Amino acid sequence: MTQDRTTPDAAAAAEQDRREEELLARVLRSFDGCADPRLKELMRALVRHLHAFLREVRLTEDEWWKAIGFLTRTGHTTDDRRQEFVLLSDTLGASMQTITINNRAYRDATEATVFGPFFVDGAPRVELGGDIGGGAPGEPCWVEGTVRDASGAPIPDARIDVWEADADGFYDVQYDDGRTAGRAHLFTGPDGEYRFWAVTPTPYPIPDDGPVGAMLAAVGRSPMRASHLHFKVTAAGHRTLVTHIFVRGDDLLDADSVFGVRESLVKDFERMPAGTPTPDGRAVGGTWSRTRFDIVLAPAGA
Amino acid sequence: MTQDRTTPDAAAAAEQDRREEELLARVLRSFDGCADPRLKELMRALVRHLHAFLREVRLTEDEWWKAIGFLTRTGHTTDDRRQEFVLLSDTLGASMQTITINNRAYRDATEATVFGPFFVDGAPRVELGGDIGGGAPGEPCWVEGTVRDASGAPIPDARIDVWEADADGFYDVQYDDGRTAGRAHLFTGPDGEYRFWAVTPTPYPIPDDGPVGAMLAAVGRSPMRASHLHFKVTAAGHRTLVTHIFVRGDDLLDADSVFGVRESLVKDFERMPAGTPTPDGRAVGGTWSRTRFDIVLAPAGA
Repeated sequence: MTQDRTTPDAAAAAEQDRREEELLARVLRSFDGCADPRLKELMRALVRHLHAFLREVRLTEDEWWKAIGFLTRTGHTTDDRRQEFVLLSDTLGASMQTITINNRAYRDATEATVFGPFFVDGAPRVELGGDIGGGAPGEPCWVEGTVRDASGAPIPDARIDVWEADADGFYDVQYDDGRTAGRAHLFTGPDGEYRFWAVTPTPYPIPDDGPVGAMLAAVGRSPMRASHLHFKVTAAGHRTLVTHIFVRGDDLLDADSVFGVRESLVKDFERMPAGTPTPDGRAVGGTWSRTRFDIVLAPAGA
Repeated sequence: MTQDRTTPDAAAAAEQDRREEELLARVLRSFDGCADPRLKELMRALVRHLHAFLREVRLTEDEWWKAIGFLTRTGHTTDDRRQEFVLLSDTLGASMQTITINNRAYRDATEATVFGPFFVDGAPRVELGGDIGGGAPGEPCWVEGTVRDASGAPIPDARIDVWEADADGFYDVQYDDGRTAGRAHLFTGPDGEYRFWAVTPTPYPIPDDGPVGAMLAAVGRSPMRASHLHFKVTAAGHRTLVTHIFVRGDDLLDADSVFGVRESLVKDFERMPAGTPTPDGRAVGGTWSRTRFDIVLAPAGA
């Protein structure tokens, strides 16, 4: 018995491993003829990680069928107005990880975050100090800051697109009346400065009446997004920045359903009592808030 | 300059890693409140492997959008008659890996392979030596063997379901005329033996007019399946076996589009000239073939 100490169980386990490895190797080889080297790299890596997942969790056939059913429902929920696969990517942090990968850290350049589905090309222009609210319900919020490059030099004429949900938690495009509200673009002044009126950001849920919402409920997660204001900042010679700012103190900062929060993007929103004079003398007739967001753009190609 | 040798590039790379790791940790933590321990395990493992894939390949935002588009088309191609997500799983080897994981190696028990979409419950019964063809076009094929347990004892009254495509590459259910052909069930005799007439298996493509077909074309892979005959073998006290047998010498054995081939499942199909007497004296009026498939069932729960 000293010659062969392999038990039947150990032999079966070794044979099982051999079968799983051999299958994986066969699938990987099937891409040998792929003429596009990047596609080949992507497919081989996808297969390696997919099989590693299956083997690690020892996926049951019943669980495999449930996954097929989930993907099918996700596909059937997706149409011209609803992108459930994007929601799935968002809620698994895959969208935010892709953004992070493609916006590499560069000195003190402002961090990027998820784009979201609510950006609209061709939003109206407002002048410096103008109001992007367009009648959106909500508390007035004064936003100001500068746009600079990584050496600290101000960037004049940078284009800033801003967009946000109203106090009811909806973007203008979610209404059926064709309104434009809570979105605009403006340009920085000669010293890179900008300022505008918006509404104080409030939290809202991602659409949760589909399979992704059911997944969140099953794992005990909330569909809510932390309160935020979207920015897209474009300037020649610089990397375009797509980001948000968040509201310090928001309960949802650690539970944002799409993982968009970065500590560096959490800003103080100072709450101003009714009657407090506003920076530009505007009469707002109630409470208002103010915040400052200084932006640093990385060079193009960084 | 000896105090700090960190270059700006190295510092940026370290910060980049920190951001990606921190994001992953945050996504993993989001499942902390999941009340179902298995679901929690599956979701956390899925997220780990998904993020590892994204980070390894440095997925671009354009590639991410292409993936979203591919999944969307896959969902829209799926309906009551067409399961494109199953085809996707099949062509990435995920279905075969799941089958392999759930049919653990056990001594010399016959290996399992993919189930496929063409099994039908309630196929007609034939007696030992009967014909499962039901008029399916194709060359007659005599199939015989035994069903035994892992100790070598024959298993009488084991139920064998068999199904196959006809010589035109179609299963009966792919025709619109409601035919039943190329499928039946039978039971083993007192010594565990079985025998039946079928048609010689021929190759056929998986449905390749959808996004999965486009993927196969893009990576230079064929949609063809190696020629095969499906078996499902059921006996009380034994693990149900779902498998195929393949035809030795088939050019497609190394290129099966769903990776179902196992060397142990490749069988000799002896080609018999016209006029060669058949085992049961049946007059077949042309060439025919014969094969033998001896089956070993693992015990239930193995």
